[in-house]
Amino acid sequence: MRVLGIDPGYAIVGWGVVEYISNRFAPIGYGAVITEKDTPFEQRLVEIYESVFDICKRYQPEALSIEKLYYQHNQTTVIGVAEARGVILLAAAQCGVPIYEYTPMQVKQAITGYGKAVKKQIQEMTRIMLHLESVPKPDDTADALGMAIAHCHCSRSRLMGTPVR
Amino acid sequence: MRVLGIDPGYAIVGWGVVEYISNRFAPIGYGAVITEKDTPFEQRLVEIYESVFDICKRYQPEALSIEKLYYQHNQTTVIGVAEARGVILLAAAQCGVPIYEYTPMQVKQAITGYGKAVKKQIQEMTRIMLHLESVPKPDDTADALGMAIAHCHCSRSRLMGTPVR
Repeated sequence: MRVLGIDPGYAIVGWGVVEYISNRFAPIGYGAVITEKDTPFEQRLVEIYESVFDICKRYQPEALSIEKLYYQHNQTTVIGVAEARGVILLAAAQCGVPIYEYTPMQVKQAITGYGKAVKKQIQEMTRIMLHLESVPKPDDTADALGMAIAHCHCSRSRLMGTPVR
Repeated sequence: MRVLGIDPGYAIVGWGVVEYISNRFAPIGYGAVITEKDTPFEQRLVEIYESVFDICKRYQPEALSIEKLYYQHNQTTVIGVAEARGVILLAAAQCGVPIYEYTPMQVKQAITGYGKAVKKQIQEMTRIMLHLESVPKPDDTADALGMAIAHCHCSRSRLMGTPVR
């Protein structure tokens, strides 16, 4: 199965496409959409939307795995992150890609088997599973690859993430 | 000038287009985009995006006036409202419509001259200014028309709303 993981944001959107066959993972493509602080906010949304739309069209993922956003996130940025997340969900839906949400704890559990693992442990496990020489940069890209792996693991069990509310 | 006002949400998106010529207002079109609770969330975003895109294309407004969203809004819905607001900003930007944000206090000040006016007073003033027989329903539509009027008033003064951050 081929899964797109996304770490949402409005300054940096990490993304990673992973192929999962016979219990082995392979990285198909990964990167980050970076928008400039000086660009009007709505234009940043346009850039994010168009980039995610292009990624969905190019890689044809069977699912989008994306972090569930909570009210408790960073208060000064959560509104902007949610607005960006809205255009990401829109682009995936328009491309016919089913969307699954996971909490950070679900991702940690799926990758390390331990729901309270630290970020560095998740990134290192992601690197090993994908046979990469180093952890992809920025962190948002590594986290997005982790999201994709988490969905691959969970989709074979009853731990699969919830559809977006 | 012709202004589109929008009261954002994911269950109901109120909208209203107002023409402002020689200090007189005329309602050009108004209504509400209503999405069903049972529809997957990302499909609700698609419906909202397509509706706002269509409204911008049909009415060709010179500006979109939209409420500024705060972290302090209703905690259980603010993430979903922000996600919907993201696709609304995207649609307007893609149609080349400049976007201005106003706080509820700015809208009240612009319409009644009093920043602490109650919602019913704003709606009644909106009704009178637009020469309507009754306050448009749902409330979201009336509020959207108020947003449009507020921008018309403010755009002739130094009180004009801020571009989206």
